[in-house]
Amino acid sequence: MLGRGNVLDAEIALQLLIKNLPSKTPPEKDVRIEDSPGMVCSQDISSPEDLPSFARSTVDGYTVKAEDTFGASEAMPAYMNLSREILMGERAGFRLSNGYAAGIPTGGMLPEGADAVVMFEYVQTIDEKMIEVLRPVAPGENVIQAGEDAGKGEILIKRGQRLRPQDIGACAGVGITVIQVYERPSVSIISTGDEIVPAESKPGAGQVRDINSYLLSAMISESGCIPVRKGIFRDDYKTLSAVIKESLSDSDAIVISGGTSVGVKDMIGRIIDEAGDPGVIFHGISLKPGKPMIGGVVEGIPVFGLPGHPAAVSICHEIFIRPVLKILSGVKEKIYLSGRRTVKARLSKNISSSQGREEHVRVMLEKRDDGLWAVPVLGKSGLITTLVRADGTIVIALNRNGMEKGEPVDVRLF
Amino acid sequence: MLGRGNVLDAEIALQLLIKNLPSKTPPEKDVRIEDSPGMVCSQDISSPEDLPSFARSTVDGYTVKAEDTFGASEAMPAYMNLSREILMGERAGFRLSNGYAAGIPTGGMLPEGADAVVMFEYVQTIDEKMIEVLRPVAPGENVIQAGEDAGKGEILIKRGQRLRPQDIGACAGVGITVIQVYERPSVSIISTGDEIVPAESKPGAGQVRDINSYLLSAMISESGCIPVRKGIFRDDYKTLSAVIKESLSDSDAIVISGGTSVGVKDMIGRIIDEAGDPGVIFHGISLKPGKPMIGGVVEGIPVFGLPGHPAAVSICHEIFIRPVLKILSGVKEKIYLSGRRTVKARLSKNISSSQGREEHVRVMLEKRDDGLWAVPVLGKSGLITTLVRADGTIVIALNRNGMEKGEPVDVRLF
Repeated sequence: MLGRGNVLDAEIALQLLIKNLPSKTPPEKDVRIEDSPGMVCSQDISSPEDLPSFARSTVDGYTVKAEDTFGASEAMPAYMNLSREILMGERAGFRLSNGYAAGIPTGGMLPEGADAVVMFEYVQTIDEKMIEVLRPVAPGENVIQAGEDAGKGEILIKRGQRLRPQDIGACAGVGITVIQVYERPSVSIISTGDEIVPAESKPGAGQVRDINSYLLSAMISESGCIPVRKGIFRDDYKTLSAVIKESLSDSDAIVISGGTSVGVKDMIGRIIDEAGDPGVIFHGISLKPGKPMIGGVVEGIPVFGLPGHPAAVSICHEIFIRPVLKILSGVKEKIYLSGRRTVKARLSKNISSSQGREEHVRVMLEKRDDGLWAVPVLGKSGLITTLVRADGTIVIALNRNGMEKGEPVDVRLF
Repeated sequence: MLGRGNVLDAEIALQLLIKNLPSKTPPEKDVRIEDSPGMVCSQDISSPEDLPSFARSTVDGYTVKAEDTFGASEAMPAYMNLSREILMGERAGFRLSNGYAAGIPTGGMLPEGADAVVMFEYVQTIDEKMIEVLRPVAPGENVIQAGEDAGKGEILIKRGQRLRPQDIGACAGVGITVIQVYERPSVSIISTGDEIVPAESKPGAGQVRDINSYLLSAMISESGCIPVRKGIFRDDYKTLSAVIKESLSDSDAIVISGGTSVGVKDMIGRIIDEAGDPGVIFHGISLKPGKPMIGGVVEGIPVFGLPGHPAAVSICHEIFIRPVLKILSGVKEKIYLSGRRTVKARLSKNISSSQGREEHVRVMLEKRDDGLWAVPVLGKSGLITTLVRADGTIVIALNRNGMEKGEPVDVRLF
């Protein structure tokens, strides 16, 4: 176990944790494509056929043999005989011969022999039997070739891709209406603290309601996983040990929030160590808020022990839990496609920070005449309303003593 | 009606459309907070009580009257008598007198008379009855005051806010477990085209499967609305008119995709005009892809006529449908919080564009040694796989002829 006295950098801690995760993928299931947005594809999907299966026009016009139009101009148009018009959704029942053209709608199927389409704009009608083509077209012009969208056997969607609207559209296009996806990992949320009562209760003297299990539950859903709120448990070795063991048997990850008072954190660390190998990986991070966090792995299942302060819970989720849940979900994504939305702003006031810890500061965005400003939200990290008032966070790097008024910042939006 | 001959700028067209929408909000319903993430709050939510309801310690230590510690130092510590320790989740059963201190855990309730907490680190134990305080504390130090997180009557969440995890946590904290939200608007999706067959079918000669209703359905869900795929309809006045009228009576917005062949677009425009006032607002946009788009409003219900090309459908959704659905959803959001995630990259090659139209180019991101590059995805806008291969889009502004290799671009990620 690392950390505690000499706390770890967040990035190193995360990598250590990830190294201790088994390389397995979640179970698979079949879903209809209309139910699959946001799910993670568990198999490469390849096209069972050519898309489209025939050459189509991309414009309204006349389909021709391109060679018949070579050299055509307004001064010297190419005269063409008309074959019968091609209707939408139908096979042209003839072969186009040299010197002939046939009216075709956008999306219409080219007849045999045709290899290009002249747009209506570049044609003059002489009578019902003949047109003048005023411009040449190249072979293939204004045509989508058979298989041009997707060739038979071509991989459309890779395993590990989170399904976007266009991925689902592509499946529909090639007739795949049921696909295999990974099951969403389930995450047990355990609230601890002798002072915590359910949100429905009226707290007695010295008691407060459970905030963190709701906060975590919503964040875990956003990460594409299934949150399971196990309930509120007393800071007691046997009680916590039992619920953690139960959760190890019925979920894919465990998040314990609270238990920040003296001794309780150590107790949670002990329970994680005794539950199985490797146990606690780190305890303590050079991160503010979030310093007393525990990260562990028990028989392949990640276990997070979070401080009780809501702002710390939020940051620890963003930095540790979200990336780990992504791995558990089977997502393989280019790194620059992950992460949250950010906006550029300037810092509205000086803020100080201690060197040697990465500090995440909650900020509100304020639009002024001279642009967007990030206004730090004052208040202790134990206050949920500091998160509610904030639009996002900025990071003061490990090696800095603070930041100055007017400095450009990237605000990571919630 | 504007557009057609002299097509409109996209931004102007959108504003015209929005101006024609009625200013009404969706019906409301009650939901449990755990089911509310992403929904839109329909009422200001204010705190029914002080949060927390008592002064709490933010550290492990000893609670004192701050004045008793003034001037304390390692050389000259303040000697304090110990009262009995305060336990978590309980009311201290005594009033703290001058000269006394009481052990208190993080989150513990301060006894009457106490106004600050000294951290364990700054205390030395003499015996079980007395401690030395080595540093002074100010009144309120290491304490969250009653009502400091939220005061009774304070507005926590404003009407029109899309509910984030922390908003739900704040509700839990003040005992609000059921809240009022807006119903999600329902959006009818009508696919037209004589060549279109359902995704489950084997297309005959000249036929293609329905891609757009799946693409639209997933995008509309992402926008927080309920997509209703009405089916595939022939390009026929009576048929389309009937389904559009039915949809006007049972949904909050209508999207018609396809029908790009000669005459059909005009027919759809005519149906929209005849269905009610004001009818078609614009037909034709200086946008590529997406130029032949129709925007209309019929008796308060927005109706979109989209070209059939998937890439055009995607862009038209992003630029027109998404902002309109946001309004229909009742979302009131600062403008800089909306929009998609973008990343900075450099353009990998020259691309040309015609001045006078805003062009959206699909790009793939490529990480090279010298940073991130945006590589244009070649292929016609009728190809769904161009969207599948792309990671996002870049915009070539209306007044530009193209962009040069190496230019910095903002890639709007899908």
